[in-house]
Amino acid sequence: MSKQRQVVRIGPFAQAIASGVRKGDAIYLSGQVSVDAEGGAIGAGDFVAQVKQSYANVAEVLAGFDATMDAIVDETWFVTDMAAVTADLPGIFGARQEAYGGPPEVTQTLIEISALFMPELLIEIKCIAHV
Amino acid sequence: MSKQRQVVRIGPFAQAIASGVRKGDAIYLSGQVSVDAEGGAIGAGDFVAQVKQSYANVAEVLAGFDATMDAIVDETWFVTDMAAVTADLPGIFGARQEAYGGPPEVTQTLIEISALFMPELLIEIKCIAHV
Amino acid sequence: MSKQRQVVRIGPFAQAIASGVRKGDAIYLSGQVSVDAEGGAIGAGDFVAQVKQSYANVAEVLAGFDATMDAIVDETWFVTDMAAVTADLPGIFGARQEAYGGPPEVTQTLIEISALFMPELLIEIKCIAHV
Repeated sequence: MSKQRQVVRIGPFAQAIASGVRKGDAIYLSGQVSVDAEGGAIGAGDFVAQVKQSYANVAEVLAGFDATMDAIVDETWFVTDMAAVTADLPGIFGARQEAYGGPPEVTQTLIEISALFMPELLIEIKCIAHV
Repeated sequence: MSKQRQVVRIGPFAQAIASGVRKGDAIYLSGQVSVDAEGGAIGAGDFVAQVKQSYANVAEVLAGFDATMDAIVDETWFVTDMAAVTADLPGIFGARQEAYGGPPEVTQTLIEISALFMPELLIEIKCIAHV
Repeated sequence: MSKQRQVVRIGPFAQAIASGVRKGDAIYLSGQVSVDAEGGAIGAGDFVAQVKQSYANVAEVLAGFDATMDAIVDETWFVTDMAAVTADLPGIFGARQEAYGGPPEVTQTLIEISALFMPELLIEIKCIAHV
């Protein structure tokens, strides 16, 4: 018999898209972006601010599973402008470490793509966690 | 000792690329696109038709593991034109729900990329399932 | 109680980015590219050479877990020019098979994206392994 899944739904698209799904020890999260609770983009033009808000949304989804950032094992960063990353590596990876509350033990794949769901968005972070 | 893997191979590239691999409870699927059994692109210019055909191909791979769409936990949509998605959210997410046979309990990450394997393709759907 | 994770760190960005994380039977790897031990891009302009070097780096990360290419179940290829792939499928998939030491039982998702971390890079390979 299949193990049951646990589902967390947050935000304006929650009816169509699960924010997170847990099956066994694995938690898959939908890519998180810099939006507020109503789905409006925030931090326009500010890459570091969008990183922080995206991770805040990741943390909120994990909280729905009684999990924290410590559970994340793998992340993919989809960014719309690689130059925004390479221009300020210390600032960006500092913000990432702050989001994790310390040096993350997490893999990362970093890709520049041509667009995200809304034109204001500069980054989408897709995470996999294991508890 | 490592658990054995189960492999499903379908379609014209089956010798090079496994369509799906099961290890333990997890099934990884290669990204599925809107092609027929011979690998020819179908549904050119019709985004919703390509969504339906891509999911039909996902379902066919899962059937090779005696699994159904219910097993999918996570999906990534790689699309070549985000405007084709945002222009018709009800139609597109209606087609998705129809493919799942009901409201999916599935995460989604939605990214616009610059090209897929064939120029006619508008979407590639990469799924992870757990049984 | 959560299972402990095992972390492998290799290369110039090892302090910020884990090269691989194992949790339970799953090993997640950061996307691997054609760089040498100091992080310099190699194989500029030569797609097949970059495929080989990327897989060599994948194998090195797996070796840190006492695992080999046999453990890989799923890979995503992010390429900067799809035409470089379709122009020489036999050469490219021959190099892939050579990297695996035989016909791989591995899924693949193939996407053209707009840029990678360094302009010389033509491909990034993201792998998931299960031991």
